Amino acid sequence: MANWFSRTARRVEPPRLRSRSDERATTRVELVEFTPDLLSFLGRSAYVQLMLFENLSRAIVNAPTTSAKTSIGRVAQLSLGKHRRLVDEIVRADGVPAEVMEPFSKPIDEFERVTRGADWYEIVTTCYVTAGFLDDFFTRLALGLPAETARRISGILSGESGQQALRDVLVTATAENDRLAPRLAMWGRRLVGDTMLLARSALRYTENHRSDAARIEPVFTELIAEHTKRMDALGLAA
Amino acid sequence: MANWFSRTARRVEPPRLRSRSDERATTRVELVEFTPDLLSFLGRSAYVQLMLFENLSRAIVNAPTTSAKTSIGRVAQLSLGKHRRLVDEIVRADGVPAEVMEPFSKPIDEFERVTRGADWYEIVTTCYVTAGFLDDFFTRLALGLPAETARRISGILSGESGQQALRDVLVTATAENDRLAPRLAMWGRRLVGDTMLLARSALRYTENHRSDAARIEPVFTELIAEHTKRMDALGLAA
Repeated sequence: MANWFSRTARRVEPPRLRSRSDERATTRVELVEFTPDLLSFLGRSAYVQLMLFENLSRAIVNAPTTSAKTSIGRVAQLSLGKHRRLVDEIVRADGVPAEVMEPFSKPIDEFERVTRGADWYEIVTTCYVTAGFLDDFFTRLALGLPAETARRISGILSGESGQQALRDVLVTATAENDRLAPRLAMWGRRLVGDTMLLARSALRYTENHRSDAARIEPVFTELIAEHTKRMDALGLAA
Repeated sequence: MANWFSRTARRVEPPRLRSRSDERATTRVELVEFTPDLLSFLGRSAYVQLMLFENLSRAIVNAPTTSAKTSIGRVAQLSLGKHRRLVDEIVRADGVPAEVMEPFSKPIDEFERVTRGADWYEIVTTCYVTAGFLDDFFTRLALGLPAETARRISGILSGESGQQALRDVLVTATAENDRLAPRLAMWGRRLVGDTMLLARSALRYTENHRSDAARIEPVFTELIAEHTKRMDALGLAA
């Protein structure tokens, strides 16, 4: 199996899908020991949502049709809603939102830069792939927060994200243009590598890196399985 | 007094401010006879809100600080909320949103192009000035819609728009940079000319253009008075 924790590992191996019941038994508990403190978690995840929103706003500005503009508008609103609710949580935890988010702005801006698509279809694919993965990841990571906030914050992050609207845009586009699907499939593979690195940087590691990797890897295998399902839903190979 | 209805009239004369009681007596009734049919109104105002949102998203993407990014994020969410509620109204009136908005996309996109600021401060000024004016204008125009919808739709348009957050950004910026205020004052004058032309294009004129102009002009005088107050709030001359 590829080592997801090496900076140079970009190629994504097709994951072995686990059965539903296996997933239920193991999911949503395995990342909790790597959850950072509340304000770090909120600062990072709030800035990630703002970045996801910026990608969506780029998709709106560049949309070729009014129909695409307005349907992605709804997706952007959902993303911005998550950002705002996370900002509210920062205030609730006695943090100053801009100060709490600031330490994460550079790496997340850099992620945005390297995952920016070359055209509108790649931009929409970026929105679909990175938001899908990161919402999934942060929802799981949130469960390691103090009990009274864990449920509320994972609820914010797992809320409706409008993936279906992005999926519809991409399925229509690839159906109309034969050359688009292989290009977007390749773009999706590139994206998931960078997205995993961003996710990984949110984990609070212990001293024992080897043991950390062993415990984190199964969760990433699941996250990649979810990514594969999202690509399948586009009719694209992950 | 300048003729606001000539395409070449771009210079804005300082308006004579009416007293509060005069305003109350005359406002919110004078545009009702120029209100277009419901779907035209909704298509245009929904696309205008989408354009205002696109300007805000440009302000977010280009913001120099995390603090500015997140505070303008809230403004963008409010604008997108208005767009979405207007889209819902199109559906309620049995329209297909993209089709109903489409006829207005070209002129509104063109407006967006000519009012796009050269730097972040101009972008934020554009958001502040054009949204302030157009929300005010469409709120008044909505009152000429069929009774059961007029109140609801003018309620959407007059809802909280986050102007205060934009104002705070601009007041801070002009306080820090002496050369900025005169440049933004000039930009505001340029913007209001284009914004009035866009507003004017939303009116359904009668056969009698001279009589129309005589009845519309007092409303625009009021709209400009509101614009002047918005510029005053920035410490800038209109």
